[in-house]
Amino acid sequence: MHINEIIAKKRDGGILSRAEIEYFVNGYTAGMIPDYQMSALLMAVFIRKMNRDETLALTEAMLHSGDIVDLSEIPGIKVDKHSTGGIGDKTTLIVAPIAAACGVPIAKMSGRGLGFTGGTVDKLESIPGFRTGLETANFIRQVHEIGIAVIGQTANVAPADKKIYALRDVTATVEDLSLITSSIMSKKLAAGSDAIVLDVKCGRGAFTETEEKALQLAMQMVEIGNAAGKKTIAAVTDMDCPLGRAVGNSVEVIEAIETLKGKGPADITELSVLLAGLMVFCGGRAKTPEDGKAQAVQALRNGTALQKLAQLITAQGGDAAVAENYSLFKQPRLKRVVIAQRDGYVTGIDARAVGIASQLAGAGRMRKEDAVDSSAGVFLHKKRNEAVGRGDVIAEIFSDSETGAESAHEVLTEAYTIDDSPAAESALIKRIIM
Amino acid sequence: MHINEIIAKKRDGGILSRAEIEYFVNGYTAGMIPDYQMSALLMAVFIRKMNRDETLALTEAMLHSGDIVDLSEIPGIKVDKHSTGGIGDKTTLIVAPIAAACGVPIAKMSGRGLGFTGGTVDKLESIPGFRTGLETANFIRQVHEIGIAVIGQTANVAPADKKIYALRDVTATVEDLSLITSSIMSKKLAAGSDAIVLDVKCGRGAFTETEEKALQLAMQMVEIGNAAGKKTIAAVTDMDCPLGRAVGNSVEVIEAIETLKGKGPADITELSVLLAGLMVFCGGRAKTPEDGKAQAVQALRNGTALQKLAQLITAQGGDAAVAENYSLFKQPRLKRVVIAQRDGYVTGIDARAVGIASQLAGAGRMRKEDAVDSSAGVFLHKKRNEAVGRGDVIAEIFSDSETGAESAHEVLTEAYTIDDSPAAESALIKRIIM
Repeated sequence: MHINEIIAKKRDGGILSRAEIEYFVNGYTAGMIPDYQMSALLMAVFIRKMNRDETLALTEAMLHSGDIVDLSEIPGIKVDKHSTGGIGDKTTLIVAPIAAACGVPIAKMSGRGLGFTGGTVDKLESIPGFRTGLETANFIRQVHEIGIAVIGQTANVAPADKKIYALRDVTATVEDLSLITSSIMSKKLAAGSDAIVLDVKCGRGAFTETEEKALQLAMQMVEIGNAAGKKTIAAVTDMDCPLGRAVGNSVEVIEAIETLKGKGPADITELSVLLAGLMVFCGGRAKTPEDGKAQAVQALRNGTALQKLAQLITAQGGDAAVAENYSLFKQPRLKRVVIAQRDGYVTGIDARAVGIASQLAGAGRMRKEDAVDSSAGVFLHKKRNEAVGRGDVIAEIFSDSETGAESAHEVLTEAYTIDDSPAAESALIKRIIM
Repeated sequence: MHINEIIAKKRDGGILSRAEIEYFVNGYTAGMIPDYQMSALLMAVFIRKMNRDETLALTEAMLHSGDIVDLSEIPGIKVDKHSTGGIGDKTTLIVAPIAAACGVPIAKMSGRGLGFTGGTVDKLESIPGFRTGLETANFIRQVHEIGIAVIGQTANVAPADKKIYALRDVTATVEDLSLITSSIMSKKLAAGSDAIVLDVKCGRGAFTETEEKALQLAMQMVEIGNAAGKKTIAAVTDMDCPLGRAVGNSVEVIEAIETLKGKGPADITELSVLLAGLMVFCGGRAKTPEDGKAQAVQALRNGTALQKLAQLITAQGGDAAVAENYSLFKQPRLKRVVIAQRDGYVTGIDARAVGIASQLAGAGRMRKEDAVDSSAGVFLHKKRNEAVGRGDVIAEIFSDSETGAESAHEVLTEAYTIDDSPAAESALIKRIIM
């Protein structure tokens, strides 16, 4: 087998065999195949596409390039959840406790934020004392004991994906369905759970802007997940505007707690009970997704989900008192308000711009090694289709940095569109693929 | 401008602007754009293609990446000749003296052989004393004085092409018409002549196997050459079987001299008068290609072309007596014959295999830094559609190496196909594009 022949085959629209796909994934990961050959192949894949069998083989080759987490010691059907990334998406902080409260074991590894997208690990670390760096044995023991653990990536999961993704990022080969699918699914399959609930975002703040593209991606991921032997369900959901009102780290944790208290924003609540319900269904604790959702709503109402979050915080060294006293979170040095320039209705809030504003305020990082400011972020006092008067506070910025707050203010002002009449309502939940 | 955007544009089938093409050619040549981005772009170009304007811009960007030879001091229309590469193709040794004898100034830079393809410089250097490394001033003075000079590549011609070609070679992006065209034409345009005659080969021994592909390449090169301001004519010619009977270095020089004496093989003679005639026409010394050809035939008959070769040899330090005494060439240590295994007609001689046999005998080099054996090579006693009897000598190998001759013998035996009846005749000259 020779890499030049594999490149030429895909270049001419051929179907690669599983052996050929394993050859280039292993060869590239091992450093035997140089970047310039891999990027030529990735471009050929991007243009000529991969079929379902090729995508499955690529996913599995990347999955087997590193550690596969073994959660078999934990009884029950472990369910993982993944979002393709959005602004203000604190749903993991909500759905994990809900699903755990409903009896689904949650043994979750989460990531950190990069660029204008936040990460669950950064958010959890805004809780004083919270540790995300558990040893595997302790991680598993904790799930045994309280049914939930959320930690940072410890295992060497899918190193092939890490290396290939870095190359795709600089060679204009990111936005291909098969490459995205294999990248996400190889990591999710390696994370050890038995079932996977995917939240595929569409809209201006999402990776895939159009609903159609998001739907295709969702269908392909569901197909690959199931073909790889894990029950997989996907929801396609809106990410035109940020989710909820809070964007940042501690501000998002506070909003998650509010949601678990039944006082959260409508959109976050709606999405959370949907996803948690799907997790309860996937975990075999409900006969139908609707029944799962009913259980999720119940866990919110009776306070068991909030208790589960408190247990999680305590178990991982955090101060669970934050749930009742938000002043225990680190406080920002500066607060800066954004004022409406005219009367009317908010018809749009550019999610991507809000993410960038939050990052500029200090909540995000440019490079992996950067630290984040746990109290930095943005609060959207006015959301889509809410009436505003000239001079009203429409948003607020939290920051420790004068210049950060200043840049964030500029970007956030631009993010708002105010018109004479409200915009057409757009559904938050577009489709469920199962 | 950003390279990622340029890659994405071509990836999606867009037309690149001249500025974008100059950006990536200059950036890559300067080492600012890494191999892995260039190879992704080349793959996108390969699959999505470039139109005529893009190909012209690419050619000109590569042309301007290095030195452009200035031949303006030499009066008259200087004509260059280029072959896409064949086995036994010693036509430069013949057509350059013919065209010069007809009054066309020939200021030619030639290459060395690599792999199974020979090079004019290696062939000329088999003449005792012949120097191909002239200084530019001497090169130009010689053309002034005797109307002809043939030297090795001295100028830093099209370094962008050199770097891009090396990358294409290892990323399965060689066989694209626009990339081939720009590679060849950037070098030819940089070589300083006013007009270019191209010999585009097709068949088993050629870069482009089918006549149709060769025709497309010829048309594109003629279009780009003319668009770049140089009169360009191309002939599409057969390279299924080797040209003439001699393949190697000194053996090819001897065959060229025989041809200039009017005693050469029919195919070499036919091709040489055609190409020389086109050069005479391009050089403004004939009103039509037919008139040019008639003059070329005349220069062969009256001995002026042979005299011109002798002048060239003498001017560059060689011993012109070789033209009358072939024993002045270095002689091979070994001669090994290939015997027909059956009666019949030679219906095919695989040109590529003959090239490899010659290389194995010592006439070619594997790597650029290797030396060649000037007396090594192959002589084809029997050519296509010649009758053979079992036991007849059909070919002969010249070598200094026992093992080289042995391997060459094996390959050369396999190169011959002998059948009961002759093969259909195939035209040597397929098309002229002007």
